[in-house]
Amino acid sequence: MSVLIVGSIALDDIKTPAAEHPNLLGGSASYGAVAASFFSPVNLVGIVGEDFPKEHIELLRSRRIDLEGLQIVAGKTFRWSGEYMLDMNTRETRSVELNVFEHFTPALPANYKSTPIVLLANIAPDLQHHVLDQVGKPRFVIADTMDLWINIAKDSLTRLLGRVDMLILNDGEARQFTGETNLVKAARAIQALGPKYVAIKKGEHGCLLFGSDGEFFSCPAFPLEEIHDPTGAGDSFAGGLAGVLARESDSGPVDFGALRRAVVFGSVLASFNVEAFSLERLKTVDAAQIEDRSRLLRLMSQFETD
Amino acid sequence: MSVLIVGSIALDDIKTPAAEHPNLLGGSASYGAVAASFFSPVNLVGIVGEDFPKEHIELLRSRRIDLEGLQIVAGKTFRWSGEYMLDMNTRETRSVELNVFEHFTPALPANYKSTPIVLLANIAPDLQHHVLDQVGKPRFVIADTMDLWINIAKDSLTRLLGRVDMLILNDGEARQFTGETNLVKAARAIQALGPKYVAIKKGEHGCLLFGSDGEFFSCPAFPLEEIHDPTGAGDSFAGGLAGVLARESDSGPVDFGALRRAVVFGSVLASFNVEAFSLERLKTVDAAQIEDRSRLLRLMSQFETD
Repeated sequence: MSVLIVGSIALDDIKTPAAEHPNLLGGSASYGAVAASFFSPVNLVGIVGEDFPKEHIELLRSRRIDLEGLQIVAGKTFRWSGEYMLDMNTRETRSVELNVFEHFTPALPANYKSTPIVLLANIAPDLQHHVLDQVGKPRFVIADTMDLWINIAKDSLTRLLGRVDMLILNDGEARQFTGETNLVKAARAIQALGPKYVAIKKGEHGCLLFGSDGEFFSCPAFPLEEIHDPTGAGDSFAGGLAGVLARESDSGPVDFGALRRAVVFGSVLASFNVEAFSLERLKTVDAAQIEDRSRLLRLMSQFETD
Repeated sequence: MSVLIVGSIALDDIKTPAAEHPNLLGGSASYGAVAASFFSPVNLVGIVGEDFPKEHIELLRSRRIDLEGLQIVAGKTFRWSGEYMLDMNTRETRSVELNVFEHFTPALPANYKSTPIVLLANIAPDLQHHVLDQVGKPRFVIADTMDLWINIAKDSLTRLLGRVDMLILNDGEARQFTGETNLVKAARAIQALGPKYVAIKKGEHGCLLFGSDGEFFSCPAFPLEEIHDPTGAGDSFAGGLAGVLARESDSGPVDFGALRRAVVFGSVLASFNVEAFSLERLKTVDAAQIEDRSRLLRLMSQFETD
């Protein structure tokens, strides 16, 4: 089955303590779609300006990513500029230029409307609502978000939670959104607003997946000695997760077992993504490497050796 | 087999955002010995003053804890007073009174000297050296430490690393000691100084265990909604871990498989410990509850459901 992904497509300028690169392919939908495409076909919804480099279009097209929902309009592509501090965990936004994104209204091509798995990648909650207004009855809807929307669009985000099966956010955002320091309580508070499942990403500390009736899964992060660019880690996680769900929903229900596997592969995709700037690592990684790393991750979290 | 535990025995005054309790049993050896005693007999080395309440002595004696190495001397018991902030992760020491601890010289009774497993619980590295000077050839030596000793006794601690099989410390301490932000690199840097194994505790994020030749285990923390008092979590972890190693070393080598299991039970003991002030929860928990929680923790970190 396919996954519908709506989100941002951006050109990023990124500075880390080790390097600085301008004009990189970025955006939640770019990372999410390429990550998902390792597991399932993707229907992409997004917007870029006429300045968007053809090579990026070609990259997306070369994967199983349908671009009928990609609007290419007059004007400049959304731009984001950020800088990572020495610990690679703290990030400062240096500038944002919305450009064509300012008046973006996601419009779903007719054949996208019945996509069974929907990933509302990180964009304004109002736009995420707008996408859900256009779809039929998807089997599973996942929403990603960020601190910005908790700060400036909390009401819309809260209403969105009543419309999705799963929310993905990081630990700081879960605390910020709920006012709960304890992550177990924070997850329960989010679930009370609608989503049956909550995934709380903790960066180098892995990810917690909360389901119903005490279902709980703790997935470690793959231990990396070098992180070259954390940008898009969360988006790759969400994309990989959604792609696996789309693949698995061919053969069974979207239950906690499927979500466990989806979280594992999301974590693996995120771990590859941070090994290079932009989507450079996702461009070169292959299915065998992804399988290998998921096996390693499994061994690393097993209580007993086989 | 038995485990030898040397560390501090204290009377603590503890304040959390929810409650304040004076005059509690505390200290690294108290927590460590009681935690270890669930799995193996303990030979305890420590010092208290004449003011040390008899009920605490009785508690230790009621477990499999040999007290021949406990010095009871004229003067007052070591006292520590601390306060936890709202997130229960940040802690401020309000006061320290060394009292009888100031001139403590650990002296091992003759029958302690061949204890096969040694836990140098958190005390000054010089005292940890002094204990190692008195033992024969233990099968496995574990050292715990804290930020204070990295600050004021780094040379002695560094020398100690050449004499131990395993170091336990938390993530902040690993970064502080090595100057490496990345925990994988920090663990490698510590291993280069001596210990074959390093356990990095990450509180609510679980624990990372590093061995040789890429051996690696990521153990989740048991998800708790309420943490009443974090004091002694690390000491209970170290004690539980050492106790399991002592139990397992009857039947096989102290290898990475045994250490995985030891880290799991250490984590379980720490999770019980923080459910109440002082050793109150460790006093009431029983073997079946410990087994149950270790099974739950295993289920929570399994990639596939059974």
